[in-house]
Amino acid sequence: MKTVEFKGDSVAILDQTMLPEREEYIECTTVECIAEAIRNLRIRGAPALGVAASFALALTASQSRGEGREEVLELLRESYEVIKSTRPTAVNLLWALDRVMERAKASSNPAEETIKEALEIYEEDLKLNQKLSENGAELLRDGDVAMTHCNAGGLATAGVGTALGVLIEASRQGKRVKVFADETRPLLQGARLTAFELLEAKVPVAVNTDSMAGMVMRREGVSKVIVGADRIASNGDTANKIGTYSLAVLAREHGIPFYIAAPLSTIDLQAESGDDIPIEFRGREEIEFFNGKRVVPRGAEIYNPAFDITPSDYIAAIITEAGVLRPPFRESIKRAFQWKGRADLQTSPG
Amino acid sequence: MKTVEFKGDSVAILDQTMLPEREEYIECTTVECIAEAIRNLRIRGAPALGVAASFALALTASQSRGEGREEVLELLRESYEVIKSTRPTAVNLLWALDRVMERAKASSNPAEETIKEALEIYEEDLKLNQKLSENGAELLRDGDVAMTHCNAGGLATAGVGTALGVLIEASRQGKRVKVFADETRPLLQGARLTAFELLEAKVPVAVNTDSMAGMVMRREGVSKVIVGADRIASNGDTANKIGTYSLAVLAREHGIPFYIAAPLSTIDLQAESGDDIPIEFRGREEIEFFNGKRVVPRGAEIYNPAFDITPSDYIAAIITEAGVLRPPFRESIKRAFQWKGRADLQTSPG
Repeated sequence: MKTVEFKGDSVAILDQTMLPEREEYIECTTVECIAEAIRNLRIRGAPALGVAASFALALTASQSRGEGREEVLELLRESYEVIKSTRPTAVNLLWALDRVMERAKASSNPAEETIKEALEIYEEDLKLNQKLSENGAELLRDGDVAMTHCNAGGLATAGVGTALGVLIEASRQGKRVKVFADETRPLLQGARLTAFELLEAKVPVAVNTDSMAGMVMRREGVSKVIVGADRIASNGDTANKIGTYSLAVLAREHGIPFYIAAPLSTIDLQAESGDDIPIEFRGREEIEFFNGKRVVPRGAEIYNPAFDITPSDYIAAIITEAGVLRPPFRESIKRAFQWKGRADLQTSPG
Repeated sequence: MKTVEFKGDSVAILDQTMLPEREEYIECTTVECIAEAIRNLRIRGAPALGVAASFALALTASQSRGEGREEVLELLRESYEVIKSTRPTAVNLLWALDRVMERAKASSNPAEETIKEALEIYEEDLKLNQKLSENGAELLRDGDVAMTHCNAGGLATAGVGTALGVLIEASRQGKRVKVFADETRPLLQGARLTAFELLEAKVPVAVNTDSMAGMVMRREGVSKVIVGADRIASNGDTANKIGTYSLAVLAREHGIPFYIAAPLSTIDLQAESGDDIPIEFRGREEIEFFNGKRVVPRGAEIYNPAFDITPSDYIAAIITEAGVLRPPFRESIKRAFQWKGRADLQTSPG
């Protein structure tokens, strides 16, 4: 089951709002179709958004073959703006758009180079998911009880996932791991997607409401908390699905290490701290109605941030493809990017 | 709008599962009907369960008029067992059943005395809600931003409520209070009932998902957390709706005082600590489906405790009709019961 796929003249997106009941794909032949899927969370998860964004540019490039260089770049710029405006918090989306545009602008054949770069981003995501999962699996022990929030699995990436990739890799290595998955209101990505992926991977999973996290930690022997990230500031402050911060506070109170699992592309070196990360507030209908049924009376205000910021001092480590980063994060993040710079040089075709 | 009413040959119960969309009453002419309403949370909230339980005995008494004394007591005992078995955590239910049965057993006319005692429990609940609310309102200041969880309002009692009674009374006194209401998964009593009651009382209310509590405390100036209780041990440990413990941990992390509002009938002097309070686990369907839609994949385990225990050291005060009890709670609770003993003596007709 692929989260997102570039098919030359279309982009196929698994509609995650239909899971776990139905596996339905949307075949997008326009950038607006991809933008709609992103806005309405048919595809979500920071790394997957990076891939989807680059595929949107690849689709434009594919459709503009035969146009002149300047026309192609102009069409790419239009698509760039459409996709950029969809969701503000996940930095991978911007990172992927910028990376593809840079290569396109530097090239005499921007259409071909755009497609190549988009496919490279996709291939890299597969590989770095695997590397990150292996790095994180070393932290897990046989018998661990892990808690996670939202969905940081294969559905949130092109590959095996980040937080779930770590858990699944540890299980694959023979370590017995049980997972408590927060259902993750309002859109229930934990209940719908995380439970689904862990069951597929034969990792035992129990679903609890978000409010139960404190009791689960206190009574059920939780030994690790592992979640993904939508944007990480250069000091380690982390924006992730709303509720992550509450979970981090609860983990500290119970002496449980709290881990972030995310690729380096989720780190925004421009953001000094969490204060520099924009937080998306979403529409009231996500909380006001459920499956068409009104559950909040008319007239009540509704507070619906999609993300919160977990300050870095609640975070034990950030698991990346470059290794497990430890505090102080400003230094360990800097070293990871130096490592990446060298790795990129070594593998670059030039 | 009455939560529950004794009408002689029936007991009318407002079906809270239909709120806020519809105000529907169930007219129960059998004890089993009342038991069903309690089991399925058509009526809920510890003080309201006490009143409903005593009305169940009153209904039996009313229907057994003309029977001999022993026959009446036998019928009352049967109803007692049916109601007792409905829900294990809220102690008010047991407290009310025992109180009514004691008076019935001591009387030569148990049917009449049962009805009188049930109506007295109802009248007392009205009065002590008001007294408790006035005691608690003194803690609130103009401009306070309060957070609450689940529903501890008029719908959870016969009167104005406990936690919401405090907030509404403070507002009535002219203090400007804004309330954040946790939606309270899985059954959304905060979204459906608390928001509804606060809007009726013209107290500004914003609904947030339970997972947002940490962010709301950190960013929205929350200055007090006030919740109800289902059972309080003699050391102050408090069982309340699942999620209360998580909220108490978050409140402490943010330096926000955390208050319990509950009548003395919620205090179980037999329970030394929270370890002695039975916790009800409810069926998986409450989390697995929402309004008929499956939101957890088949095969996933589901963890669904209805309550959690908040250790007393997270609690700043317990607001009761006997005053605001402060730590150490073992002593302040003892003094409150001594006060109540004297007050009962003074007001007793003998």
